[in-house]
Amino acid sequence: MLGPRQGGSPRDDPDESTPAPHTRLDKDASRRDEAWPLKLFVTLTSPYVRVVRMAIAELGMSERVEVVAVRTRVPDGEINAINPTGKVPTLMTGDGYFLGESRLICQYLDALHTDDPIVDHDPAEADRQFEGVITGFLDGIAVWLREQHRPANERSPGILAQERARAERCLDWLDARPELHAERLDYPRLCLFAALDALAGRLPFADWQQRAPLLARWYARVAQRPSALHTRAPDR
Amino acid sequence: MLGPRQGGSPRDDPDESTPAPHTRLDKDASRRDEAWPLKLFVTLTSPYVRVVRMAIAELGMSERVEVVAVRTRVPDGEINAINPTGKVPTLMTGDGYFLGESRLICQYLDALHTDDPIVDHDPAEADRQFEGVITGFLDGIAVWLREQHRPANERSPGILAQERARAERCLDWLDARPELHAERLDYPRLCLFAALDALAGRLPFADWQQRAPLLARWYARVAQRPSALHTRAPDR
Repeated sequence: MLGPRQGGSPRDDPDESTPAPHTRLDKDASRRDEAWPLKLFVTLTSPYVRVVRMAIAELGMSERVEVVAVRTRVPDGEINAINPTGKVPTLMTGDGYFLGESRLICQYLDALHTDDPIVDHDPAEADRQFEGVITGFLDGIAVWLREQHRPANERSPGILAQERARAERCLDWLDARPELHAERLDYPRLCLFAALDALAGRLPFADWQQRAPLLARWYARVAQRPSALHTRAPDR
Repeated sequence: MLGPRQGGSPRDDPDESTPAPHTRLDKDASRRDEAWPLKLFVTLTSPYVRVVRMAIAELGMSERVEVVAVRTRVPDGEINAINPTGKVPTLMTGDGYFLGESRLICQYLDALHTDDPIVDHDPAEADRQFEGVITGFLDGIAVWLREQHRPANERSPGILAQERARAERCLDWLDARPELHAERLDYPRLCLFAALDALAGRLPFADWQQRAPLLARWYARVAQRPSALHTRAPDR
């Protein structure tokens, strides 16, 4: 169902004790409990899911996370009973909490893997600025994708044009700053990749690579990483 | 233009030295430079703007932040030249960075005011779960507001129904957890207030207070705080 297999069965080690629910997540304790099973509820096309699945792969945690495909935006969707927001990605933690929002999930994963965190806790101002641009860019792309998939009689030409213009401004800003095109995939750069991948595959913006050639080179390099190859959406 | 006056002119103290751009935001240094002028670009109806404006008021920083109303979603909007995402809220920092996204802005404000941070850096799992519900709830409300304001021939009855159902599930979940209805307005609770305020004023959901009576009591208490009263949207 998931194409390239990303998740694995959670290991079940009887030597590990299960922590009490509502325990504060303690980094040393969580290291000790590496056998906690984690479940990630996904759709295969959400760019936010892509961010989290790539983070899991980059952190070397694929074997610890079972990936479960669900339907969203349907009244009887199974995700609605798990997370009242009905959104993906949703991560079910080993002690029974559900976590929504890709950034919160990545921060939680960091707390299990502190050596090289995906989400910077105390970024420099330039990095805060960069993250604000990237998350606004990605949110705009998500709006554009949803608009594009509406029935023709409910589609807004104005919103399609707005989102294209927003993407163009963001591409121009980002292409002019090659110092930001770092190889290390932290949270903002995972969001950037997910946004560009939607542009490259599912949005009517064939010439974005001509518009932003330096960014397109970064995108092409990242697209070859195992974390990107193993989490590609189907129908590409 | 801004109704209740929230911003003040930035103080200009010649004794304070201006830090070099690209300096890492240092907490002690930022305390020293309390005269830095900050500008917040807003629309008066965005629930995300409400979150940041209330955070500024709760932190006692209203005098330091000039609030500037701009137009969004127009090709020649002045915000597009400031922040390529074209989104509000956008905060312009004293050393010339623009920060988008309400959570990033609140974290930046915290770095200027470390005593009682709005954004928890290392939340317990229950608090991560709560923040995920709240931000998903607020994002759904924002989608609902945008859908509601589309011309009738571009509106999707399906999306309106989905967003109402999402809001109902979130209300039910939140109303069943009165232990979360804390008086202290941290980032998730500011988002909760902004979401409920949109339900109370601008969305066709008149009976939400009957559906979620405990939450409605919390909302009514928070609505009386100066930070809420002084940042109310017009036309209410």
